[in-house]
Amino acid sequence: ASQIIAAVKAVVLSNDNHRAKYFRRTHGIDEDAPTAVCVQAMVFGNRDERSGVGVLSTRDPDSGKNGIVGEWLDRAQGHELSRDEGETLRLDSSDFVEGPALTKSIWMALEDAKKKLEAHYVEMLDIEFTVESGCLFFLEVRTTTRSPRAAVRVAVEMANSGMLSKLDAVMRVNPGALENILRPVIRRNAELLPIATGLAASAGAATGKVVFSTDECRLLELADEPAILVRSNTEPEDIQGMNIAVGLLTSRGGQTSHAAVVSRSLGKPAIVGTAEIQIDVARGVFYAGDTVVRRGDYITVDGTSGAVYAGAVETDEAPDASDVLTTLLGWADEFATMKVRANADDGTGAARAKSLGAVGIGLCRTEHMFFQPEGLLAIRRAILAEGPRERQRAIAEVEPFQRAQYTEILREMDGHPVALRLLDPPLVSFLPTRDEELSEVAQELGVSVSRLQDKITEMKEVNPLCGNRGVRIGISNPEIYLVQMRAIIEAACDLVKQGMSPVPEVLLPLVSSVSELTFLKGLLVDAAESVIGSRGVSVIYTIGCMIEVPRACVVADQLAKHADFFSFGTNDLTQSAYGMSRDDMGQYFAEYQRAGVMKTSPLSRLDEEGVGALVEMGVARGIGEKTNLVLGACGEHCGHAHGIQFFHNAGLHYVSCAVNRVPVARLAAGQAAIQGMQVR
Amino acid sequence: ASQIIAAVKAVVLSNDNHRAKYFRRTHGIDEDAPTAVCVQAMVFGNRDERSGVGVLSTRDPDSGKNGIVGEWLDRAQGHELSRDEGETLRLDSSDFVEGPALTKSIWMALEDAKKKLEAHYVEMLDIEFTVESGCLFFLEVRTTTRSPRAAVRVAVEMANSGMLSKLDAVMRVNPGALENILRPVIRRNAELLPIATGLAASAGAATGKVVFSTDECRLLELADEPAILVRSNTEPEDIQGMNIAVGLLTSRGGQTSHAAVVSRSLGKPAIVGTAEIQIDVARGVFYAGDTVVRRGDYITVDGTSGAVYAGAVETDEAPDASDVLTTLLGWADEFATMKVRANADDGTGAARAKSLGAVGIGLCRTEHMFFQPEGLLAIRRAILAEGPRERQRAIAEVEPFQRAQYTEILREMDGHPVALRLLDPPLVSFLPTRDEELSEVAQELGVSVSRLQDKITEMKEVNPLCGNRGVRIGISNPEIYLVQMRAIIEAACDLVKQGMSPVPEVLLPLVSSVSELTFLKGLLVDAAESVIGSRGVSVIYTIGCMIEVPRACVVADQLAKHADFFSFGTNDLTQSAYGMSRDDMGQYFAEYQRAGVMKTSPLSRLDEEGVGALVEMGVARGIGEKTNLVLGACGEHCGHAHGIQFFHNAGLHYVSCAVNRVPVARLAAGQAAIQGMQVR
Repeated sequence: ASQIIAAVKAVVLSNDNHRAKYFRRTHGIDEDAPTAVCVQAMVFGNRDERSGVGVLSTRDPDSGKNGIVGEWLDRAQGHELSRDEGETLRLDSSDFVEGPALTKSIWMALEDAKKKLEAHYVEMLDIEFTVESGCLFFLEVRTTTRSPRAAVRVAVEMANSGMLSKLDAVMRVNPGALENILRPVIRRNAELLPIATGLAASAGAATGKVVFSTDECRLLELADEPAILVRSNTEPEDIQGMNIAVGLLTSRGGQTSHAAVVSRSLGKPAIVGTAEIQIDVARGVFYAGDTVVRRGDYITVDGTSGAVYAGAVETDEAPDASDVLTTLLGWADEFATMKVRANADDGTGAARAKSLGAVGIGLCRTEHMFFQPEGLLAIRRAILAEGPRERQRAIAEVEPFQRAQYTEILREMDGHPVALRLLDPPLVSFLPTRDEELSEVAQELGVSVSRLQDKITEMKEVNPLCGNRGVRIGISNPEIYLVQMRAIIEAACDLVKQGMSPVPEVLLPLVSSVSELTFLKGLLVDAAESVIGSRGVSVIYTIGCMIEVPRACVVADQLAKHADFFSFGTNDLTQSAYGMSRDDMGQYFAEYQRAGVMKTSPLSRLDEEGVGALVEMGVARGIGEKTNLVLGACGEHCGHAHGIQFFHNAGLHYVSCAVNRVPVARLAAGQAAIQGMQVR
Repeated sequence: ASQIIAAVKAVVLSNDNHRAKYFRRTHGIDEDAPTAVCVQAMVFGNRDERSGVGVLSTRDPDSGKNGIVGEWLDRAQGHELSRDEGETLRLDSSDFVEGPALTKSIWMALEDAKKKLEAHYVEMLDIEFTVESGCLFFLEVRTTTRSPRAAVRVAVEMANSGMLSKLDAVMRVNPGALENILRPVIRRNAELLPIATGLAASAGAATGKVVFSTDECRLLELADEPAILVRSNTEPEDIQGMNIAVGLLTSRGGQTSHAAVVSRSLGKPAIVGTAEIQIDVARGVFYAGDTVVRRGDYITVDGTSGAVYAGAVETDEAPDASDVLTTLLGWADEFATMKVRANADDGTGAARAKSLGAVGIGLCRTEHMFFQPEGLLAIRRAILAEGPRERQRAIAEVEPFQRAQYTEILREMDGHPVALRLLDPPLVSFLPTRDEELSEVAQELGVSVSRLQDKITEMKEVNPLCGNRGVRIGISNPEIYLVQMRAIIEAACDLVKQGMSPVPEVLLPLVSSVSELTFLKGLLVDAAESVIGSRGVSVIYTIGCMIEVPRACVVADQLAKHADFFSFGTNDLTQSAYGMSRDDMGQYFAEYQRAGVMKTSPLSRLDEEGVGALVEMGVARGIGEKTNLVLGACGEHCGHAHGIQFFHNAGLHYVSCAVNRVPVARLAAGQAAIQGMQVR
């Protein structure tokens, strides 16, 4: 009943007091509640020339621009409009055309109601209305589902016009949806031809593998691969799949279809009503003209233009954040107490992170530098070296190359901290995996194929997740970490000489005991001081550790004695806390969801009571030992509002997320601080 | 200096006051400290016919039998005896033969000193003495290194004679050494010929792979494989390797050599002075006559007879514990507050566990029942079934077979608890691993080789340690757990009908969240109640969970709400707490030890501050929720004194160890309780 009231209120705010009073009396309801619903019961279904049905948004649901936009259908009633039947007329306050039913005076009444209703609800609204024999009725008033950029614009403009406080504006926008604003855009060229075109329902481009169901989305999520969900239309039970997928393609439905509305609210690129495609779920294919696209094939959807492309299409970074987004995130920063850094491995990534408002790099995976051709050759030589001296020589070759890369990222982030994580993945990951590559690589290294094969076999691990990774490499092959440390300090010295202020933070991965930390710290500090001594430059660096196995949380007090900072790695911490491997979850996770044993993967949504409790233990024990210990986190959970709120409450100083999620994290960090204020 | 005092005291207790006083005065020492050392300085080195040197033990160091045994060398001095030079004479109080130097009166003086010294030190002693021109000098008195069975006999006999309290007798014996007493013995037959024979230095038979260094011992330890250390002789730096190895073989040295003495004290089978073998460490081989034994080859050493055999020789269980051991362990049980159970998978193991004093089975790995031919075929059929019904049918076939096995172990342990752990290893472990087996198995199952191969590929896991194991199988394939549960309850019903009191405890492996426990408990209780209902028999069963991943410790309060008991599995808990796989430690662990980052593997010696703290957390949170929660542990650490003491202090109700380690655990549990009393 309370939902009906608002509809009545909408009627009251228009100019039909009589019907409103009648409706209220016969329904025994009062006037003071928000939201609105259908008053279909009140109208009689006339379809004369002075009748018709319309739906409008008080602002543009895609751009957020202020002013009525909508659709109108003459001589129609009720739900005929939303069923996409008949010839609809586009409504736009900047371009009104009078008609026999939608007269100038009706339009003025709509404009008037728009102002009053927005002022009353302090919201952007959808208004369904009907004109029956020249009389205007409001059928339903509801909050508009809007695109992320519309949400941002509306919040900022309402705050600027004094309708909302800055705090409320910050709280109005769903952080998760922001990523969409910054989604890459298709790089257009003459040869790029779509295989089909549908309605551009939610902006942005996305590339992924074709799947036809929510279950398949889950499997790809576990494999950490992007999914494009392809359906004839979507229904409420598809929302989980849509949430996982990076984009959506449907063959049916219009701009107000479930698929379009939900995609916009999730901030996922979507194309709907693509009548050109025929989906055959049983065969696991869809047809687009002559093209056959199979389950697992890559496609690219451009939700901005409605074009569907085969394969992974080249994209460009999104244009920088709009003014309104910059304003909103600036407000969020004013409230936030936790900083936002980004995970970036090179100068380009760092530059983009900075432009999006990241105040540091929380995770630079230095192994990416080894994966460059020169680095790869050097580390392969080191792995296959016959003795320590040869190994050292091979590794030393990579130093100038590494140094150039550290210089690039430290220069880009001048004055801001950059956490450089020393080599983490198993060394065997640098050796070829496919038989075809073996002879080529062997020749390049000047060893026999069988020697290379033997080495690969010898180094192969039973459980790579729990194998010779992280500091275990640093301890069994100190020369690798030492060359990295020297390159970092050399790079910093160069920059200091150029008048810059590099802030390198050396991050040790997979630390599980204090002896690992003290042993490596001893070696690394010696190496650093020797470089600093010989260069005669003063460089400030810190050394900290990843907290990513449960034991590190337990002995965090001991680690804090010797670490300048902690970075919680909740991806690995989740896997080790559960004794569970991301790569193998596909074997049972669907059954877990079906049985209701787990709803979401703890790798997607932070497991507060288990993994979160370990993080809290690590924080408490770390800070208990060293009050000025710097606490951060990196990993998937740092790019999602739920995780960010948890980390804020846990007392971390920063989170570090994927570059594109920096706006998400800034907004979520602001919201977390505001929620903290309200709890207090 | 304090060590020298006792030597003087020994001299004083004999009959040479003058020299003792002189020695004491010139060394400025007083008389009141234990232990003894060389007073070589006092003698002059005469080698006339009334001179000689001897060493005796006050009791037999191998059997512990009361009475002098030892060696004597005429016309010798100092260390010539321990260098195995010259012709030594065996001394035995039951068979004394007078000589020119070792006269009847000297012998009586030795017998007298033996009594006085033992009474004074309350210890079995080694006495080195010299006779110089008819005058007896004591060179050194020290505690005797003895075999485990000697240690037990001496402690019990000293307690029985009133020299020691029961408590002190229990504290006198090193629990770790007890395992040796119960070591299997070689099954003799006419065709069994040794490849070499040496001195039987420490009793018991052991089979393992040949290694030549401590480092190699460590590698085999990590691979969980038994090592036999083969050396020309041993030195103090070899002790770590000897500690890891299951047995020792040396080519040099006598019964008092370092190798012999240390092996006895460690309770490891050892053969020393095997002059027939030639060791070539550089080539990684040893030669025994015509036989070439390579590094990694299996050999068997019989420390009771001194015979070395090629390969793994058949052995029989050791004869039951001797009376004195039974007495000592009975005393330990009187003090112990923590019970000792054993890990056993069938009736035979359970019978032996019971005979060694286990009061229950703490871990019965039910997968061993599936590895029997009938079970293997059924589970393979289930894995390859085309649908749930076919799968269920295949699994159902194994029920009567499982039931027979549960009946056997529950009958054997009548009245005692038996923790039956439901299927734990990945299902793929039931499929063939070698290509040769594929076609045979495919034929047996009536499927194509390619179908079998595809299934194996599909089920192959990236990280088997963290894969589809434990309750993850139970949730993704409930029919397996259900058939196990029904078989358990059917077996219990049968036994109750026969007037017995089976106490089945159903143990769920790898639980990480309460929803796993509640989901499976619901299914299992339904299955159990339906069997009980249809059989009309009253059976008591409990359901509990393994606590073997860190998250289970964190949410132990939630688990305790629904579990009747916890069993801490510290093998897996150690691996997941460190994010470390036992199978891959070989890649870096030797470097860890060399760098001093880790001294022992936390899989061998419980990591108290990390893994132990997680156990304590699990106990505190579990008991906090349910005060009558039963707490146990199973795993390697439960068979070692250090782990047992930790578990006692953590408040566990029982530990469950390998059958052969039950005496070790009983003694250690008694000692832990005594130490607890003394702390209080």
